[in-house]
Amino acid sequence: MISQTAEYALRAIVFLADHPDQAHTAEAIANGTRVPVGYLAKIMQILAKAGLVSSQRGLYGGFTLRRSPRELTIYDVVQCIDPINRISRCPVDLESHGDGLCHLHKVLDDALGLVERSFRQFTIHDLLLHEGDTRPLCDFKRKAKELEPATPKR
Amino acid sequence: MISQTAEYALRAIVFLADHPDQAHTAEAIANGTRVPVGYLAKIMQILAKAGLVSSQRGLYGGFTLRRSPRELTIYDVVQCIDPINRISRCPVDLESHGDGLCHLHKVLDDALGLVERSFRQFTIHDLLLHEGDTRPLCDFKRKAKELEPATPKR
Repeated sequence: MISQTAEYALRAIVFLADHPDQAHTAEAIANGTRVPVGYLAKIMQILAKAGLVSSQRGLYGGFTLRRSPRELTIYDVVQCIDPINRISRCPVDLESHGDGLCHLHKVLDDALGLVERSFRQFTIHDLLLHEGDTRPLCDFKRKAKELEPATPKR
Repeated sequence: MISQTAEYALRAIVFLADHPDQAHTAEAIANGTRVPVGYLAKIMQILAKAGLVSSQRGLYGGFTLRRSPRELTIYDVVQCIDPINRISRCPVDLESHGDGLCHLHKVLDDALGLVERSFRQFTIHDLLLHEGDTRPLCDFKRKAKELEPATPKR
């Protein structure tokens, strides 16, 4: 339901948001996200084409986020890679039905709507800000001071 | 998010549930659901292997539902074709995280959970029983007497 490619793209975007101080090569992002570098490079091209990241050549070149993590949602990233296509017309396109959906397609569209709403709700910043003992991308360890608030979680 | 193949499989299952009086050939199901026959035949093989439909050879052979539409859910059909794989462990499999999910993967898994719950909620029978002016598969016209209840619905 959520493609591997979309999940990898989210890892890459979270990596860039978490390391905003410099540009990162595809190799560095691949290492940081544990995604095969060839696969990651193709994903970065799609994200660049969609305007989510910038790509700069040269010695200190690489990828940076083009949009603020406070504004960029999970939905924005997923839509670049493996878009949620809501069902607005009968997929069989029977004229007599017009824009009405039968119950089968209504249920499917409602499920897509739930996912869309959920993904629109969270920004990349939210994911990094969230309190918890694990940090997105898993290989980023939460800093000791961030772990200190003593309320036990999970 | 919901693959074309899964949607076609749901059309085929709804067709069989709506025409339970006899077995139907792949050609008949393909015509009734407006799915290309070669594609439909492959889907029927998967559904047969998964035990959702029976296949009989011979002059009056074809496919029939093996399970009651009152028990068979959308979830059951989707899981045969394009399964919802919940995220129970960090996809990067970092030992230090154990079974804990970071917020990124928690949000993704929560969305999958919403879809799973929705799809488990509806049986194939529910889809056909539902009141409304359109009937699943779109090319099945609702009978005149079924349209009569005058409360306007879409």
